[in-house]
Amino acid sequence: MFEARLAQGMILKKIIDALRELVTDVNLDITKEGISLQAMDASHVALVTFMLRAEFFADFHCDKPQALGISISSLAKVIKCAENEDCIVIRAEDNASLITLIFEGKSEDRISEFNLNLLSLETEHMGIPDQEYAAMIQIPSSELNRICRELSQLSDTINIDINKERVIFSVNGDTGRGAISLSQKNDKNILQVVNNVNASFALRYLNLFNKASNLTTSVILSVSEDLPLILQYDFEIGSMKYYLAPKINDEFS
Amino acid sequence: MFEARLAQGMILKKIIDALRELVTDVNLDITKEGISLQAMDASHVALVTFMLRAEFFADFHCDKPQALGISISSLAKVIKCAENEDCIVIRAEDNASLITLIFEGKSEDRISEFNLNLLSLETEHMGIPDQEYAAMIQIPSSELNRICRELSQLSDTINIDINKERVIFSVNGDTGRGAISLSQKNDKNILQVVNNVNASFALRYLNLFNKASNLTTSVILSVSEDLPLILQYDFEIGSMKYYLAPKINDEFS
Amino acid sequence: MFEARLAQGMILKKIIDALRELVTDVNLDITKEGISLQAMDASHVALVTFMLRAEFFADFHCDKPQALGISISSLAKVIKCAENEDCIVIRAEDNASLITLIFEGKSEDRISEFNLNLLSLETEHMGIPDQEYAAMIQIPSSELNRICRELSQLSDTINIDINKERVIFSVNGDTGRGAISLSQKNDKNILQVVNNVNASFALRYLNLFNKASNLTTSVILSVSEDLPLILQYDFEIGSMKYYLAPKINDEFS
Repeated sequence: MFEARLAQGMILKKIIDALRELVTDVNLDITKEGISLQAMDASHVALVTFMLRAEFFADFHCDKPQALGISISSLAKVIKCAENEDCIVIRAEDNASLITLIFEGKSEDRISEFNLNLLSLETEHMGIPDQEYAAMIQIPSSELNRICRELSQLSDTINIDINKERVIFSVNGDTGRGAISLSQKNDKNILQVVNNVNASFALRYLNLFNKASNLTTSVILSVSEDLPLILQYDFEIGSMKYYLAPKINDEFS
Repeated sequence: MFEARLAQGMILKKIIDALRELVTDVNLDITKEGISLQAMDASHVALVTFMLRAEFFADFHCDKPQALGISISSLAKVIKCAENEDCIVIRAEDNASLITLIFEGKSEDRISEFNLNLLSLETEHMGIPDQEYAAMIQIPSSELNRICRELSQLSDTINIDINKERVIFSVNGDTGRGAISLSQKNDKNILQVVNNVNASFALRYLNLFNKASNLTTSVILSVSEDLPLILQYDFEIGSMKYYLAPKINDEFS
Repeated sequence: MFEARLAQGMILKKIIDALRELVTDVNLDITKEGISLQAMDASHVALVTFMLRAEFFADFHCDKPQALGISISSLAKVIKCAENEDCIVIRAEDNASLITLIFEGKSEDRISEFNLNLLSLETEHMGIPDQEYAAMIQIPSSELNRICRELSQLSDTINIDINKERVIFSVNGDTGRGAISLSQKNDKNILQVVNNVNASFALRYLNLFNKASNLTTSVILSVSEDLPLILQYDFEIGSMKYYLAPKINDEFS
């Protein structure tokens, strides 16, 4: 049997918000170590992974590793029924055909129980090699969210240009050009630059990734010209990562 | 002549909000006792009634009983022009062809006057017998609102199962099942149960009735398996009741 | 070269909000005195003008008068990227083909720079004679906004009836009539009436003009039966005026 208890259900709401526009049906991989996910978007351009660590749950029990096939849109409907302060229990028998979610209200006069049918999904796990990136920057997640949303007004491609002093996010559209520059003047923005780097990405995907900005206050971007961009969000019970290949035909070059 | 003065116009806004998606043209019945209404929805499945008692108005004067035929959508447009703190005067001559609404601002430098043409509507008053219900429960109106809205995500039919310890609201949809249980652990939820009861209802109507949850903090549900469900909202100047027949083909049985 | 520095960028956001639904492409006229605009709406029914005075900018420099042709919708997209507290610098070379906007964040770790292509627009400046109006009234801009929005529910034409004691805004629609009366009981409403006046106007345009109510707390209406209505909004760095011809076939007469 698998049973996990989350003291603050709100975190699960935010995780699902950060997934629901990117992926549809996914396998949750349950092991003694925790709950993990690896899923590509429908167009096989972006990859999202997370690991929720067993030790950060109020309670976590897993007899036998298993993959739980979930419809994210169904799970999103159910999770809306949890109040932010609810404690959430997730439960599945071994070889389960359904997953049970229990929402326990704080005042204990309210308990909600939902059962979702599990899906049988083909799994194709990719090995993701650990690679050295030319630059890593840590900035407020709300700032990246805002920059991408705003520059989307002018173009669908964003250029990220990093050197030791500053990172410049820029677009070049029909109506005009725009560039937003962040420097390392204070602790808010941290730049770790091995080599200067300049790469372009589809804003459409970055805007989807930015849904995770509700999970935590800062985001780490790993950027190299020939590697997938990584956006990493670390939060109370684990970590979420998004991968996106650079645009080859760089409009800015 | 009929003239009534409401010190807090906001209550009238909320009453109209609680009607406007359910009924279109209605007769307001004016008597010395107050203003009452009985109206069925267009599909003749649900019934709404209210009684606003003369003694709870700042001023109430009615020479002669009469029925004022009103378009709720027109009245809703007009009532939007009242500010929440406005005092509202409603006036109609005997055998009136129009109804006058006057909104008096607090600072007295602003007076709005609206005249709506009255409609001539056929009236078919139903006698509603007082009947004994198997169970009556009082719960926060916002809680019922939330439960119905959320369970609507999974199905269009809700089952209400009441015994002396708790009430369970549940749905059974294609993507999964859900159940929300409220127990009488504190004063918030009051259960008066003569007999256990289990009945199903169309969520569509309950969601319309729940617009009245802005009127007051709690709602009383009267439930029997062979009687219409009643939702009763008591507020400062009167009471509003919604009636809905149970679904015969209970999906849950 | 032209360069102007606005300490509070928010004012520019509000000015563009007050224009963007009324006009599309406009010439900004740059002189030593400041930035001015005169533009008609597409249907040539309404006229909007503003003057932003050089002396109210943190910095203002203009070598040579020039007209900068701007797409308001493009400018609106760019200006969304400014935060409310940002300082905004506007810059253009002489005979410029593009305009540069720079948004400087308060904490100085964030600078955004946008370049918009300029348009070549035909200019047709109208002389607007200073004329004597029968009545001028000053009322809260939010009040006029609310009155027009609300009365729009009932009709698309508003009648303004002013005498020394009060101004009545009224409509006469199919579902009913409405009238909102403001009197000069306190400092909020100031009536300066040479002659009583009664004129009608298209609410559609007044609702567009009312977007300027975010710029300042009060608005001055100049009303005569045979002259364009003027709505004047005075704010920190200048003044914005809207002109609208009265409706000839007065529905209220």
